[in-house]
Amino acid sequence: MRVSRIGKGKMTREMIIAKAAALFNSRGYFGASMSDLMQATGLEKGGIYNHFDNKEELAMAAFDYAVATTSAYVKGEVDKCDGAIAKLHAFVNAVSSAAESPPVPGGCPLLNSAIECDDAHPELKERVQAAITRVRRFLASIIKSGIDANEIKADVDAEKESLVIFATLEGGLMISRLFDQTPAMSSIAQHLKEHIDSLKA
Amino acid sequence: MRVSRIGKGKMTREMIIAKAAALFNSRGYFGASMSDLMQATGLEKGGIYNHFDNKEELAMAAFDYAVATTSAYVKGEVDKCDGAIAKLHAFVNAVSSAAESPPVPGGCPLLNSAIECDDAHPELKERVQAAITRVRRFLASIIKSGIDANEIKADVDAEKESLVIFATLEGGLMISRLFDQTPAMSSIAQHLKEHIDSLKA
Repeated sequence: MRVSRIGKGKMTREMIIAKAAALFNSRGYFGASMSDLMQATGLEKGGIYNHFDNKEELAMAAFDYAVATTSAYVKGEVDKCDGAIAKLHAFVNAVSSAAESPPVPGGCPLLNSAIECDDAHPELKERVQAAITRVRRFLASIIKSGIDANEIKADVDAEKESLVIFATLEGGLMISRLFDQTPAMSSIAQHLKEHIDSLKA
Repeated sequence: MRVSRIGKGKMTREMIIAKAAALFNSRGYFGASMSDLMQATGLEKGGIYNHFDNKEELAMAAFDYAVATTSAYVKGEVDKCDGAIAKLHAFVNAVSSAAESPPVPGGCPLLNSAIECDDAHPELKERVQAAITRVRRFLASIIKSGIDANEIKADVDAEKESLVIFATLEGGLMISRLFDQTPAMSSIAQHLKEHIDSLKA
């Protein structure tokens, strides 16, 4: 009995996080109200705060969930490919296709949170910084592997290129989402893949 | 007397718009509360809504002000240069330096509003779309002039390149602002200027 109640509590907590992630990712941390949260989860305020001390704690859990879900999708696509150039293309293609059907409703959680938290929300800001740093390290490690394998030119700056790829994709996501998925994202992706090809040894 | 009172009313309206622009651009349309607005302007609620029907109308005026102020700065820098390549470099440099000291506190109003409004705020969304379209047309017209002057290769796609330049800068602004002006923006700017140079005839 006791184990089953704990199990049910954990499932409710996870359901709240998943629904809150979609809501916060679409409406923003400040934009989403308690009644939005209650509507999205189908729970009363007390039912939500049974599992979280406050909105802050729920928002952090929802952000972590959104980042983990999106990362798992992109990394899964990258892992299907062999070789640094193919992996970088797969990264660009995965982010580009996520523009049309994002793993978490609302789009890229890094972009969404980065803008909202930058002046106003130090704890979320630290989490976004850490998540972006992980993405950049992931890209830089692919590039460095490519250099080690003589697939990518030895003088390519892995840190700089990881920044360029990430920034260009985020800018593309912003525009494609704002214009309701016009062909902007595919133009950006095409440009980036040409740029990635220019790094070949 | 009457003219002077109208003049004073107009000055108050403009002061409210300028203060609201800095506030909304930093905290977001949803994030900024009425008490934030009252504190920023030094006015009571009635003193603010004497000049605007509602928060929506003030937000639209503040957004237009933020875009006009930022555009005037960037265009001023571009106009100082002759030739398409030099103008494109000046555009990149102006946006890049605006990352460190933005003409309107809070950073790029297009980036800030684009993320916040995309799912939740149709009237602001239309305004952001129109403003981004104007920036892209401005960049495309510089590129087309460069093609006409044989300064830029004839097969360069002005629409696509305007998108790439704009998206890359916006992504760079997002990262540099989130990391409190690390050297990210100057790396992005350097990359873009090399890319622009590759368009030379």
